Amino acid sequence: MTTDSDALGTTEKEIMHATHRALVNSGYAELSISLIADELDKAKSTIYHYYDSKDDLLIRFLRFTLDRFEATINTSIGDHPKEDLNHIITTLLPCQLTEEKRQLHSVLVTLSPQALDQEVFREQFTEIDIRLTAIIENTVRRGIEADVFRDVDPTHMAEHILAMIKGTMYSRLTTNREAATGAAKASLFSYIDSHLIS
Amino acid sequence: MTTDSDALGTTEKEIMHATHRALVNSGYAELSISLIADELDKAKSTIYHYYDSKDDLLIRFLRFTLDRFEATINTSIGDHPKEDLNHIITTLLPCQLTEEKRQLHSVLVTLSPQALDQEVFREQFTEIDIRLTAIIENTVRRGIEADVFRDVDPTHMAEHILAMIKGTMYSRLTTNREAATGAAKASLFSYIDSHLIS
Repeated sequence: MTTDSDALGTTEKEIMHATHRALVNSGYAELSISLIADELDKAKSTIYHYYDSKDDLLIRFLRFTLDRFEATINTSIGDHPKEDLNHIITTLLPCQLTEEKRQLHSVLVTLSPQALDQEVFREQFTEIDIRLTAIIENTVRRGIEADVFRDVDPTHMAEHILAMIKGTMYSRLTTNREAATGAAKASLFSYIDSHLIS
Repeated sequence: MTTDSDALGTTEKEIMHATHRALVNSGYAELSISLIADELDKAKSTIYHYYDSKDDLLIRFLRFTLDRFEATINTSIGDHPKEDLNHIITTLLPCQLTEEKRQLHSVLVTLSPQALDQEVFREQFTEIDIRLTAIIENTVRRGIEADVFRDVDPTHMAEHILAMIKGTMYSRLTTNREAATGAAKASLFSYIDSHLIS
């Protein structure tokens, strides 16, 4: 599948990778156009040629990250709907949150207030949800067609799984309830086992 | 049950109610100490006597709101675990989001980035989750004891339900996916029916 990000020019791609490195190395709180320019080893004006502001760049970065994530998922998805579903959930909700994943998830939490009243952010958050539910829904649908899953409503199932993933992700990043992530994931997998499989 | 908020002095309670009115009337983006002082019909210095900053006041307001919410839930919870559980979910995820609820939920979304790295905010978000899961967990436990619910793990069940509620709440406020809330809720209720009841 060709994504918007494939069509990015070389410099724009470099800016995206530099943003990723700056985020992972310095964290969201420290992130600035200067820091990204340092990672890029170019002047700030290069970045401002493409993006009006840090928010503008971060919206593009969200889409770039989603494109890359989708590409990874699509590559690793195979012919086993049950394993594919486990893989999707574990990718979005890993047992151990690496520093890289923590920074990427933190971008979502940090930008979410902008989506309350700015349409350009709402559209990006809407797009993320639409593409993630589509991946989950297609996997469930494949499982039903292959008689591996019961004949459930794939849309409802996908919304259920995505809502749980998002809720757990937010709790994990904004609370000190370490055990809650494990409990929520265990319950999600047991739900899938009992509802989709047996 | 006596809460921290019951112990608040008259002026502090008035400040909390004024904050609530200011939020509902003007929205989070417009919220300022001046606006709250106007609603309170007192000088800003009265508010600064109790709270160092808007964030400081809002943390207290989160707790005040949670106390009031808990009081409402506890009053309306009866002897019917199934209806009680429906009531809790519908209160947290109403079909129609009134302007009042939208502003209150928006406070959570708006303050969540602060909880990424500020302990005082993390503690408040942790407290909210702990108290909400306790309410859900107790209701599930009562249902199991009364033989109305199956013998499930009440902790896992509560984490599952809370994660779904939070994920759905965030999506509802930050995306344009109106239908997703309905689909997630339908799936949650069907999950409760099949997993807890039959």
